[in-house]
Amino acid sequence: MSRILLSHGAGGRDMLRLITEVFRSRYSPAGVSQDDSAVLLLDAASLALTTDAFVVSPLFFPGGDIGRLAVAGTVNDLLTAAAQPLALAAAFILEEGLPLADLERIVGSMQETAAEAGVSIVTGDTKVVPRGSADQVFITTTGVGRILRPGVSGAAARPGDAVLLTGTIGDHGTAVMLARENLLGAAPIVSDAAPLTEIVLNLVQAAIPVHALRDPTRGGVAATLNEIAEQSQTAIEIEEERLPVQPAVAAACEALGLDPLTVANEGKMVVIVPPAAADQALAVIRGSRYGANAVRIGTVSAGPAGRVQVRTAFGTARLLEMPTGELLPRIC
Amino acid sequence: MSRILLSHGAGGRDMLRLITEVFRSRYSPAGVSQDDSAVLLLDAASLALTTDAFVVSPLFFPGGDIGRLAVAGTVNDLLTAAAQPLALAAAFILEEGLPLADLERIVGSMQETAAEAGVSIVTGDTKVVPRGSADQVFITTTGVGRILRPGVSGAAARPGDAVLLTGTIGDHGTAVMLARENLLGAAPIVSDAAPLTEIVLNLVQAAIPVHALRDPTRGGVAATLNEIAEQSQTAIEIEEERLPVQPAVAAACEALGLDPLTVANEGKMVVIVPPAAADQALAVIRGSRYGANAVRIGTVSAGPAGRVQVRTAFGTARLLEMPTGELLPRIC
Repeated sequence: MSRILLSHGAGGRDMLRLITEVFRSRYSPAGVSQDDSAVLLLDAASLALTTDAFVVSPLFFPGGDIGRLAVAGTVNDLLTAAAQPLALAAAFILEEGLPLADLERIVGSMQETAAEAGVSIVTGDTKVVPRGSADQVFITTTGVGRILRPGVSGAAARPGDAVLLTGTIGDHGTAVMLARENLLGAAPIVSDAAPLTEIVLNLVQAAIPVHALRDPTRGGVAATLNEIAEQSQTAIEIEEERLPVQPAVAAACEALGLDPLTVANEGKMVVIVPPAAADQALAVIRGSRYGANAVRIGTVSAGPAGRVQVRTAFGTARLLEMPTGELLPRIC
Repeated sequence: MSRILLSHGAGGRDMLRLITEVFRSRYSPAGVSQDDSAVLLLDAASLALTTDAFVVSPLFFPGGDIGRLAVAGTVNDLLTAAAQPLALAAAFILEEGLPLADLERIVGSMQETAAEAGVSIVTGDTKVVPRGSADQVFITTTGVGRILRPGVSGAAARPGDAVLLTGTIGDHGTAVMLARENLLGAAPIVSDAAPLTEIVLNLVQAAIPVHALRDPTRGGVAATLNEIAEQSQTAIEIEEERLPVQPAVAAACEALGLDPLTVANEGKMVVIVPPAAADQALAVIRGSRYGANAVRIGTVSAGPAGRVQVRTAFGTARLLEMPTGELLPRIC
C-alpha cells in the first residue's frame, strides 16, 4: 500500500493493517490499547479515554444525524471499557457555506443525545475550511469515563463464555445507505444510533461478571467477533438463526448485496459473560432501554485461536472472516 | 448569519459569536469553560480536557507539519490550565489517495513531538473519505492533563499584573502563508510550533503564582489579550516597542498586509503574573526550552473592562481590537 484507499477506513482488514503498521508501531511504546478506549491510571480512579471522527453522509438520515452518532458512538466506546461517561469534547470541521440551520440542528441533536446518555459536552473546537476542502461537517468527539469494572476487554473472553447481542443487526448501515441512495420510500428502516449507558450501567450495578463489551460499528458484528477472537486467542461460534435481523433490513441487505453481519450498528453491544451469568445478564439487558431484543447468539471456545464461525439452520458451519475491502464508506 | 463563513473559523469575533450562539448555548448547562481546557473533578485529582482540530494547508511547512502542530497545539492548551499532559487521543480524517508516505511522516512527527512534550498518544481513530470530500489530512487531537495549580484562568487576571510573552510573535502564521504562496525563498521564516511543557512545568515548580496562561494561536496575541481582558473584566495595555518580532517576519507581514499581533503563533504563551513575581517568572521562562526570548510586554489595569490598548513608541495609544473577518484560513 502506498496510497490511502477507502478500505483503509472501512473497519476491516485493511484498516487494521493501517493502524498496526502506521500508528501502533509509532505511538505509545508502552502499547496502544487494542480496545476502543485507552485506560489511564490516576490515583484511585481509572479513566477511559476514547476518540472518534464522524464523517457520515448524508448528515441527516432516518433515526438520527451526524450529531446523535457523534455522541452515541463515543459514549458507547467508553461503555465498552465498563466506564461511566464523565465528559465529552467535540471538534468541528465545517465547510464554508454550510447552512447554519444544519449546524444548529446537529448541535441540538448532540445536546439531546448527551443528556440522554448522562454526560456533558464540556469543551470543543471549530475550524472552517474553504468550500470544497471538506464535505459539509465532520465531527470528532472524545470521551473521558471513569472505569467502574476493571479488566473488561476483548482480550478477556474465555472458553465457555456466552456471546450476547443487545438487539437487531444492520439497522444503521442499511438506513444510511438507503438515505444516501434516495431509496427512503422503499423500506421503513431507521438507524439504531443510541447511547447504551443504561444497559452497561445496569450490568455493572447487577454485578454481572462481564468479560468483554464491544459495539459492532464499522465492519459490523463480523469485525467485532473477529477482533475479540483474535485479542483473546479463542474461537467464537454463533448461530445464524438466532441473529435478530428486522425483515426490512434483511430485504434491503439482500437488494444491496450486503451481509447484515458486516453492516454497521450504532446502538448495539456485543456482551461476553461467563456461562453461569448469561441468563441474568440477558434479563438485565432486556430490562434496560434499547435492550428489549437482546439474545444469546453464540459461545466462545478454546480454539483454533481467532476463528469465528456461523452455524447455519442446516447444521453446517461457515467461516465468518474479518470483512475486507471497501464496505460502506462514510457510514459513520 | 445563516451560512458558515471562513471567518467563523478564524479565531476572531465571528468565531466567538458562533461558539456563543450555537455551541455554548446548547452544551453543558453547568457552563462550558471559556478557557482552552475544561476541568474535570475526579476524586483528589483535577483533570484538564481539551480538543483541537487541525486543518493546516500545506501539510508540511518550514519548522513543522500538521502532525507537530496537532500535538504541540493540544499540549499547549493543556498547559494553559497549568496541567501536566497525561495522554493524547488522535483522530484522523484521510482523503482517499493520500500518499502513505505523507501519513507516515506526519505520524512520525506526532510521535517525536509527543516524546518531546512528555506525553503519550494512547488511542485514536481513522476515517477515510472519498477523493474530493476532504483535503488530504485533518487531525483532531484531544488531551487529558492533571492540573498542577488550580485556578489558572483567563478570568484570573488582576489589575497590576504583568503581561509576559515567551518569545517572538507571528512566526507560525507567516511561515505557513509563505509556504502556501510558494514564497519560501523570499525569507528564512520557520514556524515556532513547539510544546511548551518545560516552560509551564518550570513555572509551577518554582511556585510562581501564575494567574493566567494562554497560547496566542488563531487571532494571535490580539485575540488572546482581548479574551483575557473580557473574561477577567480588566483592561490590558501593552507596549509596541517591547513586542519581539523577527525582522524577516515583520517584513513579510508588511508585504502580506498583516499585523503580527493578529498572526497565529504555535509555540508561544502569554503568561500573566502578579507584579512582584514578574522578574522571577521571566528568569524561569528564559531558562526553559523555547523561552529564551521572553519579555514583559505590558500590564493589566482595572478598566475599562475588556479594553486592550497598544502604546506606541511615540507615547500614543491605539485600541487593539478582537480581530474580525477572514484572517488566515487553514493556518492551523
